[in-house]
Amino acid sequence: MTPLILQARFVLPMTAGNPLVEDGAVLVGADGRIEQVADAGSVISAHPGVAVRRFDDALLMPGLVNTHAHSGLLRGTAEGLPVWDWLEQFIDPMHRVLQPHEAALASRLCYAEALLSGTTTIVDMWRHMDGSARAAEQLGIRAVLVPYVGEHPDHDYFETLDTNEALIEAWHGRAGGRISVWVGLEHMFYATPDAWARAVAISRRHGVGLHTHSNESRFDLTETQRRYGMRPVQALERFGLLDAHRVLLAHCVWVDDDEIELLARRGVGVAHNPVSNMKLASGAAPVEKMLARGIAVGLGTDGEKENNNLDMFEEMKVASLLAKFSRLDAAALDSWDVCRMATITGARALGLDAAIGTLEPGKQADIIAVRTDTPRMTPLVSGRLANLHHNLVFAAQGGDVRMTMVAGRIVVDEGRLLSGDLAAFIDETNAALPGLFARREAWLQQHRSVNALRAAGE
Amino acid sequence: MTPLILQARFVLPMTAGNPLVEDGAVLVGADGRIEQVADAGSVISAHPGVAVRRFDDALLMPGLVNTHAHSGLLRGTAEGLPVWDWLEQFIDPMHRVLQPHEAALASRLCYAEALLSGTTTIVDMWRHMDGSARAAEQLGIRAVLVPYVGEHPDHDYFETLDTNEALIEAWHGRAGGRISVWVGLEHMFYATPDAWARAVAISRRHGVGLHTHSNESRFDLTETQRRYGMRPVQALERFGLLDAHRVLLAHCVWVDDDEIELLARRGVGVAHNPVSNMKLASGAAPVEKMLARGIAVGLGTDGEKENNNLDMFEEMKVASLLAKFSRLDAAALDSWDVCRMATITGARALGLDAAIGTLEPGKQADIIAVRTDTPRMTPLVSGRLANLHHNLVFAAQGGDVRMTMVAGRIVVDEGRLLSGDLAAFIDETNAALPGLFARREAWLQQHRSVNALRAAGE
Repeated sequence: MTPLILQARFVLPMTAGNPLVEDGAVLVGADGRIEQVADAGSVISAHPGVAVRRFDDALLMPGLVNTHAHSGLLRGTAEGLPVWDWLEQFIDPMHRVLQPHEAALASRLCYAEALLSGTTTIVDMWRHMDGSARAAEQLGIRAVLVPYVGEHPDHDYFETLDTNEALIEAWHGRAGGRISVWVGLEHMFYATPDAWARAVAISRRHGVGLHTHSNESRFDLTETQRRYGMRPVQALERFGLLDAHRVLLAHCVWVDDDEIELLARRGVGVAHNPVSNMKLASGAAPVEKMLARGIAVGLGTDGEKENNNLDMFEEMKVASLLAKFSRLDAAALDSWDVCRMATITGARALGLDAAIGTLEPGKQADIIAVRTDTPRMTPLVSGRLANLHHNLVFAAQGGDVRMTMVAGRIVVDEGRLLSGDLAAFIDETNAALPGLFARREAWLQQHRSVNALRAAGE
Repeated sequence: MTPLILQARFVLPMTAGNPLVEDGAVLVGADGRIEQVADAGSVISAHPGVAVRRFDDALLMPGLVNTHAHSGLLRGTAEGLPVWDWLEQFIDPMHRVLQPHEAALASRLCYAEALLSGTTTIVDMWRHMDGSARAAEQLGIRAVLVPYVGEHPDHDYFETLDTNEALIEAWHGRAGGRISVWVGLEHMFYATPDAWARAVAISRRHGVGLHTHSNESRFDLTETQRRYGMRPVQALERFGLLDAHRVLLAHCVWVDDDEIELLARRGVGVAHNPVSNMKLASGAAPVEKMLARGIAVGLGTDGEKENNNLDMFEEMKVASLLAKFSRLDAAALDSWDVCRMATITGARALGLDAAIGTLEPGKQADIIAVRTDTPRMTPLVSGRLANLHHNLVFAAQGGDVRMTMVAGRIVVDEGRLLSGDLAAFIDETNAALPGLFARREAWLQQHRSVNALRAAGE
């Protein structure tokens, strides 16, 4: 890789105090790391032989960190149900029949969508993830791959801890360190106590994180209380799951003060998914309380079937809207906090804050250029009424991303994906759907018949 | 204008039953009206001499109808306050010092933003609206212009009923009928009883609608009850305001069942602004109840300072999310209903449903092309799991609009504004801001001094 200077109207490093460099530049070294962030004049004059790429009408900022997503290809075809019914009727039957080549298509298209809208790191809980790893390797996204593990007689159609560990061994740390593999559990209900212990052991043995869904819906809360006589985070603690090397919990919508205290004490990261939580009618997570307690709360889009897009700018906006609405307080959730959730706080939730999340010398060059020459970014005001952070949260959209760089490689330029053939991805995804739906329908028919027979026999 | 056939992968006319024409076409006549909507083969073969514009990877649908917006240039500079405090501290002082050329710049940029994201009709409540009319005339948007009228000793810095009536006489029905002018009241509190009667008389004399804010926040509700001993819609009825030629109310967040009944009985239209209602912590309007009672509930973005963009696709998504979340019911607010709110139901709220809101012969050719060759629109499935409407509501964004046509004139093509110089609009808006802010600050300083003296004298 050749060193490169990115020069832009603004550079927003997202470091402490939220400084903004007007006419700034970032020097990206041959190793794909950031070497310098400063005003353009001093960066350029200090490195006369280095090529300069100019973004006169854009802002450079850290690439966005999507802390919870699922690759998928069901967008818009699984609608209108609360989360547990929706799992039963649409999602789990899909998992029963999903084939590896379909899973790979899904990852390819989702990573492309993420990169195009400015996401440089994605936590992806998905299936048959050799294909996901190959997609991440090809497309150039930074990925934390987390297989959907089910280790329970009722949920024997997911990944297993064995396939999860094999994926860790095959892929963790690959692609120049861009690919991590964690241990994934769909939900603690989807695994036996023995499997909980094994999951934690694998996490510790390999020094990788554990990611699962927790406390998403009221059903999740009440069912946990019914089964174990305690609340979800307490159950995770009690059954040893918080002893994993690192833990990231998706949702945490219904956590109470004791659970928040426990999350903080154990250094657990949280992925907040406001669009999904509204769309599936799950509820509003107490984000400000968690942030105030020092918990690293990142943002996640959840899957293409729960959202139904992977635009982290939209997620920032809805995070703020949901906080304001659910407390009826227009001052809730500061816009800078939201920008941090999408970048450095999200990185911290993944334990990757030493490597990504801000533009600082030594960090990976995960950088996006966001257009400022749009009505949505107008006006841009400095001083007491400075509005760049508000514009980023409320006005900008993923489509305003001109350039996406990951580890020093430009993978999206002028809004076009460079690292893959987007049109082919779309065509192949559309072509794969009828087969998947037909197999799911066949499974559901058979399953309904069995259930009907069972019911008749009783 | 030369007749033109628009051919596309899909045509979604938004007529009853939500039919979808695959490989469809729309014939646009020389008068800017739709002459035919059918499969491409039959339209093209019946009109061999007419030019064909192809959108092989797009969907044609009616242009979106934004039923409540305010031109403005304060985006991101007025944040974090509930609506009435926010009016006092940021907005009303701006109105006191706003100059006509600044108001015109604001309209120009807002109409450009609206057209670029697929809005073909905008209801704009704003100031010094000769400039707005000229902007609408130039840019080609269909506009319902509604001056912000204040007729009250405490609010003598807005438009007046006299300037409102002058605007009606100068502009109503102009630009080939694209421009309407209605009577506007900022809020019933901003006018005296005498002015209420005059507003209604002007509306009836000219056969134009009356538009005002009502029942936006809890303060609005309780203050109306304190002043008049009744709820807001009842007060509007009691004081004769519902006797206007036609009435459109923005917000209606806190309406109760009696008020809904009254709205339905009097044929009042409602503009629902979910993003603004969340951002200003106003509340959640009972949209489904109002729709079920037959009330025409359209969608509005509210202003660039309340939202902070004018993307009606985002508004559709948030409308659905807010309905689902506020009732904790994932099935709330059907996606087709949301698509209708943004098109034909919005048109009905304005009394324009005979002219716009669907693609049908005889209606105005207000048509947009929405890209289908994007990850956000993938997959596209037909049959039992058909997902186009869900994709439009939850996945698509304003940036996916390739082409915007109003009254037969293409004003946005390949995502670029054809009817004005967008870069100049942005530069001039940025250049105008410092002067406006300086005058507002000077007014606030003086006003604070007067208040401090008054307080000291008491």
